[in-house]
Amino acid sequence: MSEAQRKPAVVLLSGGLDSATTLAIALDDGFACHAVSFDYGQRHSCELAAAARVAAAMGMCEHRIIKLDLSAEAGFAGSALTDDDIPVPKDRPAAGGIPPTYVPARNTIFLALALGYAEVIGALDIFIGVNAIDYSGYPDCRREFIMAFETMANFATAATDGGEQFIEIHAPLIDMTKAQIIRTGLALGVDYGLTHSCYDPSECGLACGRCDSCRLRLAGFAEAAAVDPLAYQSH
Amino acid sequence: MSEAQRKPAVVLLSGGLDSATTLAIALDDGFACHAVSFDYGQRHSCELAAAARVAAAMGMCEHRIIKLDLSAEAGFAGSALTDDDIPVPKDRPAAGGIPPTYVPARNTIFLALALGYAEVIGALDIFIGVNAIDYSGYPDCRREFIMAFETMANFATAATDGGEQFIEIHAPLIDMTKAQIIRTGLALGVDYGLTHSCYDPSECGLACGRCDSCRLRLAGFAEAAAVDPLAYQSH
Repeated sequence: MSEAQRKPAVVLLSGGLDSATTLAIALDDGFACHAVSFDYGQRHSCELAAAARVAAAMGMCEHRIIKLDLSAEAGFAGSALTDDDIPVPKDRPAAGGIPPTYVPARNTIFLALALGYAEVIGALDIFIGVNAIDYSGYPDCRREFIMAFETMANFATAATDGGEQFIEIHAPLIDMTKAQIIRTGLALGVDYGLTHSCYDPSECGLACGRCDSCRLRLAGFAEAAAVDPLAYQSH
Repeated sequence: MSEAQRKPAVVLLSGGLDSATTLAIALDDGFACHAVSFDYGQRHSCELAAAARVAAAMGMCEHRIIKLDLSAEAGFAGSALTDDDIPVPKDRPAAGGIPPTYVPARNTIFLALALGYAEVIGALDIFIGVNAIDYSGYPDCRREFIMAFETMANFATAATDGGEQFIEIHAPLIDMTKAQIIRTGLALGVDYGLTHSCYDPSECGLACGRCDSCRLRLAGFAEAAAVDPLAYQSH
Protein backbone atom coordinates (compact mmCIF):
# COMPACT_ATOMS: atom_id res chain seq x y z
CA MET A 1 0.00 0.00 0.00
CA SER A 2 1.41 3.42 -0.90
CA GLU A 3 1.72 6.20 1.63
CA ALA A 4 -0.98 8.21 -0.15
CA GLN A 5 -3.59 5.44 0.22
CA ARG A 6 -3.16 5.15 3.98
CA LYS A 7 -5.72 6.79 6.24
CA PRO A 8 -4.22 8.70 9.17
CA ALA A 9 -4.53 7.29 12.69
CA VAL A 10 -3.28 8.46 16.07
CA VAL A 11 -1.59 5.69 18.08
CA LEU A 12 -0.86 6.08 21.80
CA LEU A 13 2.72 4.87 22.20
CA SER A 14 4.09 4.57 25.72
CA GLY A 15 7.16 2.69 24.56
CA GLY A 16 6.01 -0.52 26.23
CA LEU A 17 5.30 -3.95 24.85
CA ASP A 18 1.56 -3.44 24.41
CA SER A 19 1.71 -0.10 22.63
CA ALA A 20 4.53 -1.26 20.32
CA THR A 21 2.36 -4.22 19.32
CA THR A 22 -0.62 -1.91 18.83
CA LEU A 23 1.42 0.31 16.54
CA ALA A 24 2.47 -2.72 14.49
CA ILE A 25 -1.19 -3.78 14.20
CA ALA A 26 -2.27 -0.28 13.11
CA LEU A 27 0.45 -0.19 10.45
CA ASP A 28 -0.51 -3.70 9.32
CA ASP A 29 -4.14 -2.54 9.11
CA GLY A 30 -3.01 0.06 6.57
CA PHE A 31 -3.00 3.25 8.60
CA ALA A 32 -0.48 6.08 8.34
CA CYS A 33 0.36 6.26 12.02
CA HIS A 34 0.93 9.37 14.08
CA ALA A 35 2.30 8.03 17.34
CA VAL A 36 1.97 10.18 20.46
CA SER A 37 3.70 9.73 23.79
CA PHE A 38 3.17 11.67 26.99
CA ASP A 39 5.83 13.20 29.16
CA TYR A 40 3.70 13.52 32.29
CA GLY A 41 6.24 13.36 35.08
CA GLN A 42 6.45 9.55 35.21
CA ARG A 43 9.35 8.06 37.16
CA HIS A 44 9.97 5.64 34.28
CA SER A 45 10.52 8.46 31.80
CA CYS A 46 13.06 6.31 29.94
CA GLU A 47 9.95 4.81 28.31
CA LEU A 48 9.90 8.00 26.18
CA ALA A 49 13.25 7.08 24.65
CA ALA A 50 11.87 3.59 24.03
CA ALA A 51 8.82 5.11 22.31
CA ALA A 52 11.08 7.13 20.03
CA ARG A 53 13.14 4.00 19.22
CA VAL A 54 10.02 1.95 18.47
CA ALA A 55 8.50 4.66 16.26
CA ALA A 56 11.78 5.11 14.37
CA ALA A 57 12.08 1.35 13.78
CA MET A 58 8.62 1.11 12.21
CA GLY A 59 8.02 2.74 8.84
CA MET A 60 5.03 4.96 7.95
CA CYS A 61 5.10 6.54 11.34
CA GLU A 62 5.45 10.04 12.80
CA HIS A 63 6.16 10.48 16.52
CA ARG A 64 5.33 13.34 18.85
CA ILE A 65 5.77 13.74 22.61
CA ILE A 66 3.10 15.82 24.37
CA LYS A 67 4.15 17.37 27.65
CA LEU A 68 1.79 17.74 30.58
CA ASP A 69 2.38 17.78 34.28
CA LEU A 70 0.62 15.09 36.32
CA SER A 71 3.16 15.28 39.15
CA ALA A 72 2.32 15.55 42.83
CA GLU A 73 3.43 19.21 42.75
CA ALA A 74 0.88 19.92 40.02
CA GLY A 75 -1.93 18.55 42.19
CA PHE A 76 -1.91 14.94 41.00
CA ALA A 77 -0.43 13.40 44.14
CA GLY A 78 -1.00 9.82 45.09
CA SER A 79 0.40 7.57 42.36
CA ALA A 80 3.57 5.54 42.69
CA LEU A 81 4.33 6.32 39.04
CA THR A 82 4.51 10.08 39.56
CA ASP A 83 5.24 10.50 43.26
CA ASP A 84 8.72 9.49 44.43
CA ASP A 85 7.45 9.18 47.99
CA ILE A 86 5.22 6.21 47.07
CA PRO A 87 7.12 2.97 46.34
CA VAL A 88 6.31 0.83 43.30
CA PRO A 89 5.02 -2.54 44.61
CA LYS A 90 7.31 -5.50 43.94
CA ASP A 91 6.57 -9.25 43.78
CA ARG A 92 2.85 -8.52 44.14
CA PRO A 93 0.40 -11.42 43.76
CA ALA A 94 -1.41 -11.43 40.43
CA ALA A 95 -4.87 -10.47 41.70
CA GLY A 96 -5.11 -7.64 44.19
CA GLY A 97 -7.39 -4.73 43.31
CA ILE A 98 -6.26 -1.38 41.92
CA PRO A 99 -2.55 -0.93 42.75
CA PRO A 100 -0.75 2.28 43.84
CA THR A 101 0.74 2.63 40.35
CA TYR A 102 -2.72 3.72 39.16
CA VAL A 103 -2.63 7.32 37.84
CA PRO A 104 -6.07 8.93 38.21
CA ALA A 105 -7.89 9.23 34.90
CA ARG A 106 -4.66 8.71 32.95
CA ASN A 107 -6.17 6.99 29.91
CA THR A 108 -9.02 9.53 29.83
CA ILE A 109 -6.49 12.36 29.79
CA PHE A 110 -4.27 10.67 27.16
CA LEU A 111 -7.22 9.77 24.92
CA ALA A 112 -8.63 13.30 25.26
CA LEU A 113 -5.34 14.78 24.03
CA ALA A 114 -5.15 12.14 21.29
CA LEU A 115 -8.68 13.12 20.25
CA GLY A 116 -7.71 16.77 19.90
CA TYR A 117 -4.58 15.87 17.98
CA ALA A 118 -6.57 13.49 15.74
CA GLU A 119 -8.94 16.29 14.85
CA VAL A 120 -6.04 18.60 13.97
CA ILE A 121 -4.45 16.08 11.57
CA GLY A 122 -7.78 14.90 10.14
CA ALA A 123 -7.71 11.41 11.68
CA LEU A 124 -10.86 9.57 12.76
CA ASP A 125 -9.06 6.52 14.14
CA ILE A 126 -7.27 6.31 17.49
CA PHE A 127 -5.40 3.20 18.66
CA ILE A 128 -4.70 2.40 22.30
CA GLY A 129 -2.95 -0.71 23.62
CA VAL A 130 -5.10 -1.38 26.68
CA ASN A 131 -5.86 -4.94 27.58
CA ALA A 132 -8.13 -6.34 30.22
CA ILE A 133 -6.71 -9.84 30.68
CA ASP A 134 -3.06 -9.68 31.81
CA TYR A 135 -3.14 -6.13 33.14
CA SER A 136 -2.52 -4.20 36.33
CA GLY A 137 -6.17 -3.84 37.37
CA TYR A 138 -6.66 -0.25 36.18
CA PRO A 139 -10.33 0.64 35.58
CA ASP A 140 -9.49 2.62 32.43
CA CYS A 141 -8.21 -0.49 30.64
CA ARG A 142 -11.62 -2.16 30.33
CA ARG A 143 -13.81 -2.47 27.25
CA GLU A 144 -16.70 -0.55 28.90
CA PHE A 145 -14.42 2.44 29.37
CA ILE A 146 -13.15 2.37 25.78
CA MET A 147 -16.70 2.10 24.41
CA ALA A 148 -17.94 4.96 26.60
CA PHE A 149 -15.00 7.12 25.53
CA GLU A 150 -15.77 6.43 21.87
CA THR A 151 -19.42 7.42 22.37
CA MET A 152 -18.35 10.63 24.13
CA ALA A 153 -15.74 11.43 21.45
CA ASN A 154 -18.42 11.41 18.78
CA PHE A 155 -20.24 14.24 20.58
CA ALA A 156 -17.07 16.15 21.39
CA THR A 157 -15.55 17.40 18.18
CA ALA A 158 -16.26 19.41 15.07
CA ALA A 159 -15.04 16.43 13.01
CA THR A 160 -18.16 14.42 13.81
CA ASP A 161 -20.59 17.32 14.10
CA GLY A 162 -23.35 16.57 11.64
CA GLY A 163 -22.94 12.81 11.95
CA GLU A 164 -21.35 12.00 8.60
CA GLN A 165 -18.05 10.89 10.13
CA PHE A 166 -17.39 8.58 13.05
CA ILE A 167 -14.44 8.50 15.43
CA GLU A 168 -13.33 4.98 16.28
CA ILE A 169 -11.24 4.04 19.31
CA HIS A 170 -9.37 0.84 18.42
CA ALA A 171 -8.20 -1.38 21.27
CA PRO A 172 -6.97 -4.42 19.35
CA LEU A 173 -5.32 -6.05 22.39
CA ILE A 174 -8.27 -5.77 24.74
CA ASP A 175 -9.18 -9.46 24.81
CA MET A 176 -5.68 -10.90 24.30
CA THR A 177 -3.50 -12.55 26.91
CA LYS A 178 0.03 -11.20 27.24
CA ALA A 179 1.30 -14.30 25.43
CA GLN A 180 -1.09 -13.68 22.53
CA ILE A 181 0.05 -10.06 22.34
CA ILE A 182 3.71 -11.15 22.19
CA ARG A 183 3.02 -13.78 19.53
CA THR A 184 1.08 -11.23 17.45
CA GLY A 185 3.90 -8.70 17.74
CA LEU A 186 6.60 -11.20 16.88
CA ALA A 187 4.62 -12.28 13.80
CA LEU A 188 4.46 -8.60 12.74
CA GLY A 189 8.20 -8.14 13.27
CA VAL A 190 8.15 -6.06 16.45
CA ASP A 191 11.60 -5.81 18.04
CA TYR A 192 10.73 -6.06 21.74
CA GLY A 193 14.34 -5.28 22.57
CA LEU A 194 13.50 -1.65 21.75
CA THR A 195 10.61 -1.45 24.22
CA HIS A 196 10.51 -0.58 27.91
CA SER A 197 7.89 -1.90 30.34
CA CYS A 198 9.33 -1.47 33.85
CA TYR A 199 7.65 0.94 36.30
CA ASP A 200 10.77 1.28 38.42
CA PRO A 201 13.91 0.99 36.31
CA SER A 202 17.45 1.64 37.49
CA GLU A 203 19.02 4.97 36.60
CA CYS A 204 20.54 3.46 33.48
CA GLY A 205 17.10 2.16 32.43
CA LEU A 206 17.51 -1.50 33.43
CA ALA A 207 14.16 -3.18 34.18
CA CYS A 208 13.60 -4.31 37.78
CA GLY A 209 11.97 -7.65 36.90
CA ARG A 210 9.73 -7.45 39.98
CA CYS A 211 7.08 -4.73 39.47
CA ASP A 212 3.62 -5.68 38.12
CA SER A 213 4.58 -4.59 34.61
CA CYS A 214 7.82 -6.64 34.53
CA ARG A 215 6.09 -9.68 36.02
CA LEU A 216 3.26 -9.60 33.45
CA ARG A 217 5.80 -9.19 30.67
CA LEU A 218 8.04 -12.02 31.83
CA ALA A 219 5.10 -14.36 32.38
CA GLY A 220 3.83 -13.49 28.88
CA PHE A 221 7.17 -14.33 27.22
CA ALA A 222 7.34 -17.57 29.19
CA GLU A 223 3.82 -18.56 28.14
CA ALA A 224 4.54 -17.60 24.52
CA ALA A 225 7.68 -19.77 24.70
CA ALA A 226 9.68 -16.79 23.45
CA VAL A 227 12.77 -15.06 24.78
CA ASP A 228 12.46 -11.54 26.16
CA PRO A 229 15.39 -9.69 24.58
CA LEU A 230 15.56 -7.21 27.49
CA ALA A 231 18.15 -7.41 30.25
CA TYR A 232 16.83 -7.33 33.82
CA GLN A 233 18.33 -6.44 37.18
CA SER A 234 16.86 -9.66 38.61
CA HIS A 235 14.07 -12.13 38.08
CA MET B 1 -22.78 25.88 56.39
CA SER B 2 -19.39 25.21 57.94
CA GLU B 3 -16.35 24.35 55.87
CA ALA B 4 -16.32 20.81 57.30
CA GLN B 5 -19.86 20.05 56.08
CA ARG B 6 -19.12 21.00 52.49
CA LYS B 7 -18.49 18.25 49.94
CA PRO B 8 -15.53 18.92 47.65
CA ALA B 9 -16.14 19.79 44.00
CA VAL B 10 -13.85 20.67 41.12
CA VAL B 11 -14.98 23.76 39.18
CA LEU B 12 -13.53 24.63 35.78
CA LEU B 13 -12.76 28.34 35.99
CA SER B 14 -11.64 30.09 32.82
CA GLY B 15 -12.00 33.52 34.35
CA GLY B 16 -14.94 34.38 32.10
CA LEU B 17 -18.50 35.35 32.90
CA ASP B 18 -19.93 31.85 32.59
CA SER B 19 -17.39 30.05 34.76
CA ALA B 20 -17.50 32.77 37.45
CA THR B 21 -21.28 32.32 37.61
CA THR B 22 -20.85 28.54 37.74
CA LEU B 23 -18.43 28.87 40.66
CA ALA B 24 -20.94 31.06 42.50
CA ILE B 25 -23.67 28.45 41.90
CA ALA B 26 -21.42 25.61 43.14
CA LEU B 27 -20.61 27.57 46.30
CA ASP B 28 -24.29 28.41 46.79
CA ASP B 29 -25.08 24.68 46.37
CA GLY B 30 -22.85 24.03 49.37
CA PHE B 31 -19.70 22.65 47.79
CA ALA B 32 -16.13 23.33 48.92
CA CYS B 33 -14.81 24.41 45.55
CA HIS B 34 -11.46 23.55 44.04
CA ALA B 35 -11.27 25.81 41.00
CA VAL B 36 -8.96 24.80 38.15
CA SER B 37 -7.81 26.91 35.23
CA PHE B 38 -5.75 25.85 32.24
CA ASP B 39 -2.71 27.59 30.87
CA TYR B 40 -2.81 25.99 27.42
CA GLY B 41 -1.17 28.59 25.21
CA GLN B 42 -4.28 30.70 24.69
CA ARG B 43 -3.76 34.16 23.21
CA HIS B 44 -6.10 35.58 25.85
CA SER B 45 -3.95 34.31 28.72
CA CYS B 46 -4.97 37.34 30.78
CA GLU B 47 -8.07 35.26 31.55
CA LEU B 48 -5.83 33.35 33.98
CA ALA B 49 -5.31 36.50 36.05
CA ALA B 50 -9.09 37.01 35.95
CA ALA B 51 -9.61 33.43 37.16
CA ALA B 52 -7.28 34.07 40.09
CA ARG B 53 -9.13 37.33 40.93
CA VAL B 54 -12.53 35.60 40.76
CA ALA B 55 -11.40 32.68 42.92
CA ALA B 56 -9.84 35.01 45.49
CA ALA B 57 -13.01 37.11 45.68
CA MET B 58 -15.22 34.08 46.46
CA GLY B 59 -14.79 32.31 49.79
CA MET B 60 -14.51 28.53 50.32
CA CYS B 61 -12.42 28.22 47.21
CA GLU B 62 -8.99 26.91 46.31
CA HIS B 63 -7.50 27.74 42.91
CA ARG B 64 -4.97 25.85 40.80
CA ILE B 65 -3.64 26.49 37.29
CA ILE B 66 -2.79 23.38 35.27
CA LYS B 67 -0.27 23.88 32.49
CA LEU B 68 -0.48 22.03 29.19
CA ASP B 69 0.60 22.96 25.72
CA LEU B 70 -2.12 23.07 23.06
CA SER B 71 -0.16 25.46 20.85
CA ALA B 72 0.45 25.06 17.14
CA GLU B 73 4.09 24.13 17.88
CA ALA B 74 2.89 21.28 20.10
CA GLY B 75 0.84 19.84 17.24
CA PHE B 76 -2.48 21.53 17.96
CA ALA B 77 -2.44 23.95 15.05
CA GLY B 78 -5.57 25.42 13.57
CA SER B 79 -7.39 27.42 16.24
CA ALA B 80 -7.53 31.19 16.33
CA LEU B 81 -7.24 31.00 20.12
CA THR B 82 -3.85 29.31 20.11
CA ASP B 83 -2.37 30.15 16.72
CA ASP B 84 -1.33 33.77 16.19
CA ASP B 85 -1.47 33.28 12.42
CA ILE B 86 -5.26 32.78 12.50
CA PRO B 87 -7.24 35.94 13.22
CA VAL B 88 -10.10 36.00 15.74
CA PRO B 89 -13.31 36.75 13.80
CA LYS B 90 -14.90 40.13 14.57
CA ASP B 91 -18.47 41.39 14.14
CA ARG B 92 -19.56 37.88 13.09
CA PRO B 93 -23.29 37.23 12.61
CA ALA B 94 -24.86 35.26 15.48
CA ALA B 95 -25.44 31.99 13.63
CA GLY B 96 -22.64 30.64 11.50
CA GLY B 97 -21.40 27.12 12.25
CA ILE B 98 -18.29 26.23 14.20
CA PRO B 99 -15.97 29.27 14.23
CA PRO B 100 -12.14 29.30 13.93
CA THR B 101 -11.86 29.98 17.67
CA TYR B 102 -12.83 26.33 18.23
CA VAL B 103 -10.00 24.42 19.97
CA PRO B 104 -10.18 20.70 19.08
CA ALA B 105 -11.49 18.60 21.97
CA ARG B 106 -10.80 21.39 24.47
CA ASN B 107 -13.61 20.60 26.89
CA THR B 108 -12.83 16.88 26.68
CA ILE B 109 -9.21 17.60 27.60
CA PHE B 110 -10.14 20.03 30.40
CA LEU B 111 -12.78 17.71 31.86
CA ALA B 112 -10.37 14.75 31.66
CA LEU B 113 -7.79 16.66 33.71
CA ALA B 114 -10.51 17.83 36.11
CA LEU B 115 -11.59 14.20 36.49
CA GLY B 116 -8.08 13.12 37.47
CA TYR B 117 -7.76 16.03 39.88
CA ALA B 118 -11.20 15.27 41.36
CA GLU B 119 -10.13 11.71 42.06
CA VAL B 120 -6.95 12.91 43.79
CA ILE B 121 -8.84 15.25 46.14
CA GLY B 122 -11.74 12.84 46.68
CA ALA B 123 -14.36 14.87 44.80
CA LEU B 124 -17.21 13.24 42.89
CA ASP B 125 -18.66 16.50 41.54
CA ILE B 126 -17.29 18.53 38.65
CA PHE B 127 -18.81 21.85 37.53
CA ILE B 128 -18.41 23.29 34.03
CA GLY B 129 -19.95 26.52 32.75
CA VAL B 130 -20.90 25.40 29.25
CA ASN B 131 -24.12 26.68 27.79
CA ALA B 132 -25.85 25.75 24.59
CA ILE B 133 -28.05 28.79 24.03
CA ASP B 134 -25.94 31.96 23.68
CA TYR B 135 -22.67 30.24 22.79
CA SER B 136 -20.08 30.18 20.07
CA GLY B 137 -21.28 27.00 18.34
CA TYR B 138 -18.72 24.62 19.82
CA PRO B 139 -19.84 20.96 19.76
CA ASP B 140 -18.41 20.31 23.23
CA CYS B 141 -20.82 22.77 24.85
CA ARG B 142 -23.94 20.67 24.25
CA ARG B 143 -25.89 18.59 26.75
CA GLU B 144 -25.28 15.35 24.77
CA PHE B 145 -21.55 15.84 25.15
CA ILE B 146 -21.75 16.50 28.90
CA MET B 147 -23.97 13.46 29.44
CA ALA B 148 -21.67 11.23 27.41
CA PHE B 149 -18.64 12.50 29.32
CA GLU B 150 -20.36 11.75 32.63
CA THR B 151 -21.15 8.20 31.51
CA MET B 152 -17.54 7.68 30.40
CA ALA B 153 -16.17 9.18 33.64
CA ASN B 154 -18.01 6.59 35.68
CA PHE B 155 -16.10 3.81 33.88
CA ALA B 156 -12.78 5.66 33.98
CA THR B 157 -11.66 5.93 37.57
CA ALA B 158 -10.92 3.93 40.68
CA ALA B 159 -13.32 6.23 42.58
CA THR B 160 -16.35 4.69 40.91
CA ASP B 161 -14.98 1.18 40.47
CA GLY B 162 -17.45 -1.11 42.19
CA GLY B 163 -20.40 1.19 41.52
CA GLU B 164 -21.03 2.57 45.01
CA GLN B 165 -20.09 6.12 44.10
CA PHE B 166 -21.13 8.21 41.12
CA ILE B 167 -19.29 11.06 39.41
CA GLU B 168 -21.58 13.91 38.40
CA ILE B 169 -20.74 16.52 35.77
CA HIS B 170 -22.77 19.62 36.65
CA ALA B 171 -23.50 22.09 33.85
CA PRO B 172 -25.91 24.46 35.61
CA LEU B 173 -25.88 27.06 32.80
CA ILE B 174 -26.57 24.68 29.96
CA ASP B 175 -30.12 25.80 29.24
CA MET B 176 -29.79 29.44 30.30
CA THR B 177 -29.62 32.45 28.02
CA LYS B 178 -26.70 34.82 28.60
CA ALA B 179 -29.10 37.26 30.24
CA GLN B 180 -30.34 34.57 32.63
CA ILE B 181 -26.74 33.67 33.49
CA ILE B 182 -25.96 37.31 34.27
CA ARG B 183 -29.08 37.77 36.40
CA THR B 184 -28.26 34.56 38.31
CA GLY B 185 -24.69 35.70 38.94
CA LEU B 186 -25.71 39.18 40.02
CA ALA B 187 -28.21 37.68 42.48
CA LEU B 188 -25.39 35.55 43.91
CA GLY B 189 -23.08 38.55 44.23
CA VAL B 190 -20.68 37.84 41.36
CA ASP B 191 -18.49 40.83 40.57
CA TYR B 192 -18.35 40.68 36.77
CA GLY B 193 -15.78 43.45 36.82
CA LEU B 194 -13.25 40.79 37.88
CA THR B 195 -13.97 38.52 34.89
CA HIS B 196 -12.48 38.43 31.41
CA SER B 197 -14.36 37.15 28.34
CA CYS B 198 -12.58 38.59 25.28
CA TYR B 199 -10.82 36.24 22.83
CA ASP B 200 -8.60 38.98 21.47
CA PRO B 201 -7.77 41.55 24.15
CA SER B 202 -5.27 44.38 23.81
CA GLU B 203 -1.86 43.91 25.41
CA CYS B 204 -3.08 45.59 28.56
CA GLY B 205 -6.06 43.21 28.71
CA LEU B 206 -8.76 45.54 27.37
CA ALA B 207 -11.65 43.62 25.75
CA CYS B 208 -12.14 44.16 22.00
CA GLY B 209 -15.95 44.35 22.13
CA ARG B 210 -16.21 42.72 18.70
CA CYS B 211 -15.28 39.02 18.96
CA ASP B 212 -18.02 36.38 19.45
CA SER B 213 -17.37 36.24 23.17
CA CYS B 214 -17.57 40.02 23.68
CA ARG B 215 -20.68 40.26 21.51
CA LEU B 216 -22.50 37.51 23.42
CA ARG B 217 -21.51 39.13 26.71
CA LEU B 218 -22.61 42.62 25.71
CA ALA B 219 -25.90 41.38 24.28
CA GLY B 220 -26.50 39.45 27.51
CA PHE B 221 -25.95 42.49 29.71
CA ALA B 222 -28.23 44.53 27.45
CA GLU B 223 -30.99 41.90 27.62
CA ALA B 224 -30.57 41.60 31.39
CA ALA B 225 -30.88 45.39 31.63
CA ALA B 226 -27.63 45.43 33.60
CA VAL B 227 -24.41 47.36 33.18
CA ASP B 228 -21.26 45.46 32.20
CA PRO B 229 -18.61 46.83 34.55
CA LEU B 230 -15.79 46.06 32.06
CA ALA B 231 -14.15 48.68 29.90
CA TYR B 232 -13.99 47.96 26.16
CA GLN B 233 -11.82 49.16 23.32
CA SER B 234 -14.97 49.74 21.24
CA HIS B 235 -18.53 48.59 20.87
